[in-house]
Amino acid sequence: MQTEAAIDVDHDTFLKDLIAEGLLIPSGTAGVYGTNSVFEKVRLAVDDAATSLADPREAERLRFPPVLPRRHLETSGYLRSFPHLLGSVFAFDGSERDAVEQEARASEHGDWSEFQRMTDLVLLPAACYPVYPAIAERGPLPPGGITVETGGACVFRSEPSEDPARLQSFHMHEHVRIGEPEAVKAWREQWSHRALAFLTDLRLEVFLQPASDPFFGRSGRMLASSQLQQELKLEIVTPISADEPTAIASLNYHQDHFATRFGLVTSEGEMAHTACVGFGEERIVLALLRTHGFDPATWPIEVRGRLWGEA
Amino acid sequence: MQTEAAIDVDHDTFLKDLIAEGLLIPSGTAGVYGTNSVFEKVRLAVDDAATSLADPREAERLRFPPVLPRRHLETSGYLRSFPHLLGSVFAFDGSERDAVEQEARASEHGDWSEFQRMTDLVLLPAACYPVYPAIAERGPLPPGGITVETGGACVFRSEPSEDPARLQSFHMHEHVRIGEPEAVKAWREQWSHRALAFLTDLRLEVFLQPASDPFFGRSGRMLASSQLQQELKLEIVTPISADEPTAIASLNYHQDHFATRFGLVTSEGEMAHTACVGFGEERIVLALLRTHGFDPATWPIEVRGRLWGEA
Repeated sequence: MQTEAAIDVDHDTFLKDLIAEGLLIPSGTAGVYGTNSVFEKVRLAVDDAATSLADPREAERLRFPPVLPRRHLETSGYLRSFPHLLGSVFAFDGSERDAVEQEARASEHGDWSEFQRMTDLVLLPAACYPVYPAIAERGPLPPGGITVETGGACVFRSEPSEDPARLQSFHMHEHVRIGEPEAVKAWREQWSHRALAFLTDLRLEVFLQPASDPFFGRSGRMLASSQLQQELKLEIVTPISADEPTAIASLNYHQDHFATRFGLVTSEGEMAHTACVGFGEERIVLALLRTHGFDPATWPIEVRGRLWGEA
Repeated sequence: MQTEAAIDVDHDTFLKDLIAEGLLIPSGTAGVYGTNSVFEKVRLAVDDAATSLADPREAERLRFPPVLPRRHLETSGYLRSFPHLLGSVFAFDGSERDAVEQEARASEHGDWSEFQRMTDLVLLPAACYPVYPAIAERGPLPPGGITVETGGACVFRSEPSEDPARLQSFHMHEHVRIGEPEAVKAWREQWSHRALAFLTDLRLEVFLQPASDPFFGRSGRMLASSQLQQELKLEIVTPISADEPTAIASLNYHQDHFATRFGLVTSEGEMAHTACVGFGEERIVLALLRTHGFDPATWPIEVRGRLWGEA
């Protein structure tokens, strides 16, 4: 059983312990794990808590499937910044004879990629992407803008890693604000306190810090440095399993990036700004397991109270 | 507002009404919809109810991500029966110059498929697929076999349709039995009653009937006819939005299909048999909306009681 004394384990040992305890079930592919009822119970409690951080009167709840029309992805500019992270959906396109040949190769674990063609869907890279085109479709924003609470599976991010806190398939919970620039900035400021308070209630050792996204290639380094300088991305980090603390929540101010691309305008006809705050559910669960031990029944009463209302 | 009188609408009208009411949010791609808080509240209640149909003492709860190692899919034989339904995950593989060219084409909504390569993951075609290799990994089954309760997102099934009850991305809840042939057959028989009782409690007009899977091609017709004859697949169907009633649950007896492929043996060293029962969550929600109207607050008290414990 993991105890607080184990906080200095490296990620190899942490992963082995998680597997030995049955909390993670290896699939044979790095960063892809099944989970047991204990892990899932904590994840659902984190999801519920992250949901109820937003007052239902202030946020509209929307859910989107984990596939995104390719056209929206193309419009979003994602491929400029993160071509290396995206998963695209391919499917069979061929004759009955092609299907036989495909199966023959697959049954020998050979290469059957030539029978697969790109579909008009890609895998959702972050929970907030479908929100922008869906809200833009309604026309100009109401006065004061709009807040959306959303979340779900991020099916695939192409970054195979042996670090259990860097999954290829995971769940995010997001809150999204679309409105006038000043209102959006104030909202992100308010949420940085709210998110810190939530994660501190879970007795995690957290720090808020400016951060940058993992932009692709050499030109990406300039984007990252400009993002840092302007403090467009803030992360809440905590020690989990890497040498550096891992981000378990992030607060992103997109300025007019999504608004311009999807045509989001305020009630006054000005270009809107957008921001989002995202919680990485599996990472929060791992941070809890790492900090408080592998048996949630023995976690500090305040933590259990915050997650399951136990007094 | 939809009322019971509307039960004879065709799927075009039903879809338009669902969208007008905000229950479904079009994405621009057929069979891919966002949902609002009303739809999601019902879906989560259906998920909870389907979960608790299994006694936690009799079933082990496991959750798996919506991606499956390609190798497991290849081993399962899925490509022989359903090559036309599978989605495979592709991702970028190239230089910085390739990334620039990919983005240039994508920004004009052109063809950028040549920069994408097959990864070692495919999209989970049904919630039970990861269960078989995960249980096989443990070695021979315990005496009496094992029961698993699982579920989650089925990210993609390649069947674009204008029928809202035929989604390309949806959620399934599954219960899986692995054990001695007689025990597995008896379990499926018991679950056919349990599933019918559950859906009848929801005041849906349901029928249990032998069915066949949508096998691919001409040879598929023989597979389908043999499956029907042996009653390997049972479906619980209800009128939703197509001319024919739609399956909202299915009970599948796989004989030794998965056991042979993944090496599942009983405690006595015999080849195991497997069966699963799956609930289509969005289809059940749509059947409820169609039968009882678009406002869950006005649904029959018995239905609300079954879903939310309202007395």
